[in-house]
Amino acid sequence: MSARILDGEAFAARIHGETSARVSRCKKRGVVPGLVFIRVGEDPASRAYVSRKEKRAQEVGIASRTLVLPESTPLNTLLKEIDALNTDPKVHGILIQSPLPAALPNDVVYARVSPAKDVDGFHPVNFGKLLLGDASGFLPCTPAGILEILRLGEIPTAGQHAVIVGRGQIVGRPLALLLARKSPGADCTVTLAHSRTANLAALTRQADILVGALGRPLFLKQEHVKPGATVVDVGVNRVNDPSNPRGYRLVGDVDFDSVKAVAGAITPNPGGVGPMTISLLLSNTVRAAEDLHP
Amino acid sequence: MSARILDGEAFAARIHGETSARVSRCKKRGVVPGLVFIRVGEDPASRAYVSRKEKRAQEVGIASRTLVLPESTPLNTLLKEIDALNTDPKVHGILIQSPLPAALPNDVVYARVSPAKDVDGFHPVNFGKLLLGDASGFLPCTPAGILEILRLGEIPTAGQHAVIVGRGQIVGRPLALLLARKSPGADCTVTLAHSRTANLAALTRQADILVGALGRPLFLKQEHVKPGATVVDVGVNRVNDPSNPRGYRLVGDVDFDSVKAVAGAITPNPGGVGPMTISLLLSNTVRAAEDLHP
Repeated sequence: MSARILDGEAFAARIHGETSARVSRCKKRGVVPGLVFIRVGEDPASRAYVSRKEKRAQEVGIASRTLVLPESTPLNTLLKEIDALNTDPKVHGILIQSPLPAALPNDVVYARVSPAKDVDGFHPVNFGKLLLGDASGFLPCTPAGILEILRLGEIPTAGQHAVIVGRGQIVGRPLALLLARKSPGADCTVTLAHSRTANLAALTRQADILVGALGRPLFLKQEHVKPGATVVDVGVNRVNDPSNPRGYRLVGDVDFDSVKAVAGAITPNPGGVGPMTISLLLSNTVRAAEDLHP
Repeated sequence: MSARILDGEAFAARIHGETSARVSRCKKRGVVPGLVFIRVGEDPASRAYVSRKEKRAQEVGIASRTLVLPESTPLNTLLKEIDALNTDPKVHGILIQSPLPAALPNDVVYARVSPAKDVDGFHPVNFGKLLLGDASGFLPCTPAGILEILRLGEIPTAGQHAVIVGRGQIVGRPLALLLARKSPGADCTVTLAHSRTANLAALTRQADILVGALGRPLFLKQEHVKPGATVVDVGVNRVNDPSNPRGYRLVGDVDFDSVKAVAGAITPNPGGVGPMTISLLLSNTVRAAEDLHP
């Protein structure tokens, strides 16, 4: 037996189709949803991510562009650029690609983006609304994308036990809150596990839905998975690979080949969570435009 | 064998002592920490809570007063009162007693308090900072008080499994995040359970730390508790009691008499979480004054 594949590319294509239709409706009313990426420095992975997101944005009809700033950009210069975009009526969404250079304080930078244009869902006000269950905020794209994978993959959630391995602020913590919400597509019992968790495998084997979001290559193996469970792999880890022209390859947190033999359903990686994150970013951007021009 | 009692009154007295010393230091620098309660309507329980908190505030030397508004207060009037307190330099903390009358939207009212004076920790920005692990925000008083009970009660937390029953925005959800933090006094594996959880007792019996925060009288019984576990009772439930002059009495979520026989440590109720909540409110207020006049 082998697990059903939760095809993130296919799910993302469905969401892109809906987003594209919403963009057309906006344009009929004279509104072109606009998204600006800010990239500071020339990290090769960041360049690749931004260019992929920009390409997708253009495919669904969003006007997007990337503001590239040098690695040495002073904080004040970056904040002024953000301020200008915050007040630019043609810009509905602003995404600051992480990681920022070490000299720039994340908290100050992300809090500068107007919450109404924070389509990444990283502003404290949007995180606060998530905790409060206030739907007027933007949800962070990766956790929201995982909820969409479960929905489109027709994975039952109500009363199911979701175990999330990894307590990061971008995925683990917000995803725990979202899955525990009293809401269709959620209503899970949620366990947040991490590097200090004792007897991890005994815990993860209780999971109906198991999420790997800890950032350790191929960490979750067959022994961690209850037969029939749904497994979602969020990890993006570099491992050395001299046979690859870049000198490394990207692998997830889940040992796909061994886990797929016991899981009931599983996301591939790549091709699972990644494309969904982008699709949620674009639907957030269109919502920002719709909210501003109702 | 009977559980060790985690005496919230005694722990709160220790925190009040520290707060009182901090108030004295503020006053030596000419700063009198000021706290204003806003109570809308004449709910008897709210009157009792506010008057108890005000009394404690005065005991530690905080200048406190209560603004009482009629039940029929229009939203705009309440917001104007909040605005005036936000800009009043003598006021460092503002607490709006819940529940508000049904006509007043909670989200609008609580978001109006300046985050720097939100000593209750209920503003979206402060909830967002909690999720982000940004220590510059105010923590909501009840979850923060529970962490203090564990600290002062010398209950180990790192790597321990905390099961929280109840997913409310005031206790369950923020407490889950706080207990899962990578931080001394936290670092728990955390499970958030609730009304939709299947096999609740099988789950709660795995808990090293079990928190009842669901609002159902005496719901957690001996069968829910692993021998030796620490049990924290957050519940405040009214049950009819004709023998009581008020016609009701207050009981917790934990069936104390049966649970104390198996638990290793347990909070009484009353006298456990309640006094700690007040002590955290007052220490938040002094911190607001210290932050404003460093």
